[in-house]
Amino acid sequence: MTLSPAVDAWAEEEPGAATDRSGWPGGIPSRVVRPRAVIEVQQLLAEAYRTRTPVIPRGAGSGLAAGAVGVEGAILLDLSALDRILELDADEQLARVEPGVITADLDAAASAHGLMYAPDPGSVGISTIGGNIATNAGGLRGAKYGVTRDHVLALDVVLADGSLVRVGRDTIKGVTGYDLVSLFTGSEGTLGVVVGATVRLIPRPARTATAAAYFADIATAARAVTAITRSGVRPAVLEILDGRTLAAIDDLEGTALRERGDALVVIQTDGYGAEEELEVLTSAIAALATDVQTATDAAASDALLFARRRALPALEALGRVLIEDIAVPRKRLAEAVDGISDIAQEEGVDIFVFGHAGDGNLHPIIVTERGAADDPVPDAAASAAERIFALALELGGTITAEHGVGRLKKEWALRELGPEVHALQWRLKEAFDSRGILNPGSSL
Amino acid sequence: MTLSPAVDAWAEEEPGAATDRSGWPGGIPSRVVRPRAVIEVQQLLAEAYRTRTPVIPRGAGSGLAAGAVGVEGAILLDLSALDRILELDADEQLARVEPGVITADLDAAASAHGLMYAPDPGSVGISTIGGNIATNAGGLRGAKYGVTRDHVLALDVVLADGSLVRVGRDTIKGVTGYDLVSLFTGSEGTLGVVVGATVRLIPRPARTATAAAYFADIATAARAVTAITRSGVRPAVLEILDGRTLAAIDDLEGTALRERGDALVVIQTDGYGAEEELEVLTSAIAALATDVQTATDAAASDALLFARRRALPALEALGRVLIEDIAVPRKRLAEAVDGISDIAQEEGVDIFVFGHAGDGNLHPIIVTERGAADDPVPDAAASAAERIFALALELGGTITAEHGVGRLKKEWALRELGPEVHALQWRLKEAFDSRGILNPGSSL
Repeated sequence: MTLSPAVDAWAEEEPGAATDRSGWPGGIPSRVVRPRAVIEVQQLLAEAYRTRTPVIPRGAGSGLAAGAVGVEGAILLDLSALDRILELDADEQLARVEPGVITADLDAAASAHGLMYAPDPGSVGISTIGGNIATNAGGLRGAKYGVTRDHVLALDVVLADGSLVRVGRDTIKGVTGYDLVSLFTGSEGTLGVVVGATVRLIPRPARTATAAAYFADIATAARAVTAITRSGVRPAVLEILDGRTLAAIDDLEGTALRERGDALVVIQTDGYGAEEELEVLTSAIAALATDVQTATDAAASDALLFARRRALPALEALGRVLIEDIAVPRKRLAEAVDGISDIAQEEGVDIFVFGHAGDGNLHPIIVTERGAADDPVPDAAASAAERIFALALELGGTITAEHGVGRLKKEWALRELGPEVHALQWRLKEAFDSRGILNPGSSL
Repeated sequence: MTLSPAVDAWAEEEPGAATDRSGWPGGIPSRVVRPRAVIEVQQLLAEAYRTRTPVIPRGAGSGLAAGAVGVEGAILLDLSALDRILELDADEQLARVEPGVITADLDAAASAHGLMYAPDPGSVGISTIGGNIATNAGGLRGAKYGVTRDHVLALDVVLADGSLVRVGRDTIKGVTGYDLVSLFTGSEGTLGVVVGATVRLIPRPARTATAAAYFADIATAARAVTAITRSGVRPAVLEILDGRTLAAIDDLEGTALRERGDALVVIQTDGYGAEEELEVLTSAIAALATDVQTATDAAASDALLFARRRALPALEALGRVLIEDIAVPRKRLAEAVDGISDIAQEEGVDIFVFGHAGDGNLHPIIVTERGAADDPVPDAAASAAERIFALALELGGTITAEHGVGRLKKEWALRELGPEVHALQWRLKEAFDSRGILNPGSSL
């Protein structure tokens, strides 16, 4: 097993090795282990089980909820070196991968066969499949193609005691036994350590068509999203950005998006009906929009999606970002954006809003002054975040649509689930991890 | 609570009240209870928990695996009277239903708003949503739209002790806590009693296009399925029927399908690209087919799908049917149909094959002489069924794709899962049902 040298040494050499992108400080683990074979993970867990030592499984460290950060005295189990695509079966349309494979690399490999790995979280270029499975990551294509869970057929999992099991199957369908694949997916490393996955690949769409529609304000844009839902066409991508985010992109990229409207909705359709579907969608919102640009070739489509892809970098350029991740019923999007705007004003903080409108998933981004990395979050920002969580629940939504609970949102997860369901979660946890060594302190 | 009269009385009045369609004899329960309110289910479970009395939750009795049949001394909890569609929100595209709603009724209600409830098991006209959730039912549209699990957002569940919890949420996405919706879906009444469900509705496709392609033999038809998978187009429906099944349909319906070929593949595409997609698919198989008929209007499409919908009735007209439900990796379909044909010959039994080829899901139907309802399955038929299960596992498949394990396939479920995963299943079961009162003897 490749063990790291003493803690101080690795901490100096790899300053990010125990933190993620949430801003959570993270503690100093007793060891960092970066196995190169599944058997090493099994040996490590068997030893941790015997000695009752906490183990924190971890991928690329791109998490946003402090689900996989250093914990005092724990073993940080870095799975990033298990990074092989073991098999890509184009006829059967599946791939077997190790957990450390970067998601975009899998999609690129699939692309060479006319296929795609559909889930595409914003972090697709840096996050791992294992991390995506741990959080049940979503992404831009979720409006049509769903989330990570919808594309995982089977998992190889090392259990708390070091034993290795395979759950799920290679077939598209199958109902033998409880759905353990869905249970491990999104369990944030608290039930077992995913050391392999069999994932579905689907045909890459023959065509795409894209529209960028601008609106006078974000509330009208939210109404356009409702009109799109009602239109009878399911777009592959349906994103929303507010005017403040557009201005930030303009500042970073030298574009002039903000001149076109105070809110942007980006719509992409795909498949053989892409162009006709886009026509139906743009007609449905024509009366609401101030400006609509469309594209049917790949380069122009990419250009229209460019703004969306630059949203987070543009905000990161402005200061320190707190990335929230609520979802609400789609028809309540307008209330959600209104509520967030009120919170920003009342707390006196800068909040930018963009997100996956097709899923009702908003990412309100609270931007504060950039201080030292370990500065605490300013009180007003923390208070705004809490109020955004409360707003999501009030609107019948969730505090996290795709980023996970981690250490950051545990209290709010309890509020969302309620004590009875929370107790059920603990019964499950104890069934899988009776000694409580798997990512303790996270998620529940 | 509406309690049935004494056992003998109800058994005479409702001879099917304790059996399903699997042919499993079923025992005489001590009581049959048909609650009309959720609180009655809670009271019943609380009492059963206290007295450690087994409870068998049950829908329409259309099951095929003896998952919800009478058991000596148990309470049969018939949920068919909880049959209201409580809400259908066309803007949000979801419905709240009680478990006893007939699946086709929900789809019809959705249809009035231009929406559909996508899962369509063969039993859609008689089975309930609750039963569909218990088995994670699939259906014809599964090739494109997935299975029941993919369309359930939230569940109201009465736990073993009578407490009521709601798991899941109204939003499309959400990752707070473990995925209990997926865990209850497909758990065959062994973890809790589903008393309500919030399900997704999706836009009804604007258009459909259908092709019926005939082949010289079933092996060539299976190769056509592989060609379709490779074509880059995902059909909404992709069904396969062997020549013996076609002949049975001809006998029942007076059609002349069997003259056109010794195997039929029915393909349906839908959405704005439906016609172009069907062109791509029919070109992909043109060289393999002996005859291809296509239709783009609804009536002609229905006519082409008619044969598939009459397959089971045609076989039921021939004798007593044993309905199997294996799935294999799609590229191994040809091996599966060959293997089944060998088994039929060697065991000297009649086996007909049709199924959802797009999912690799075959329904081999063993037809035996019609005897009394409680005649045991003939040895040769039982032996053929066992060999079909073994074949499915040998080909990397599953013993049940969509019908469930029930009491019928428990031993084979253990073989498929292996002892380690089976033990994990039991740990889950115990976490939810420590007294073992929920559908004991079924599924695991």
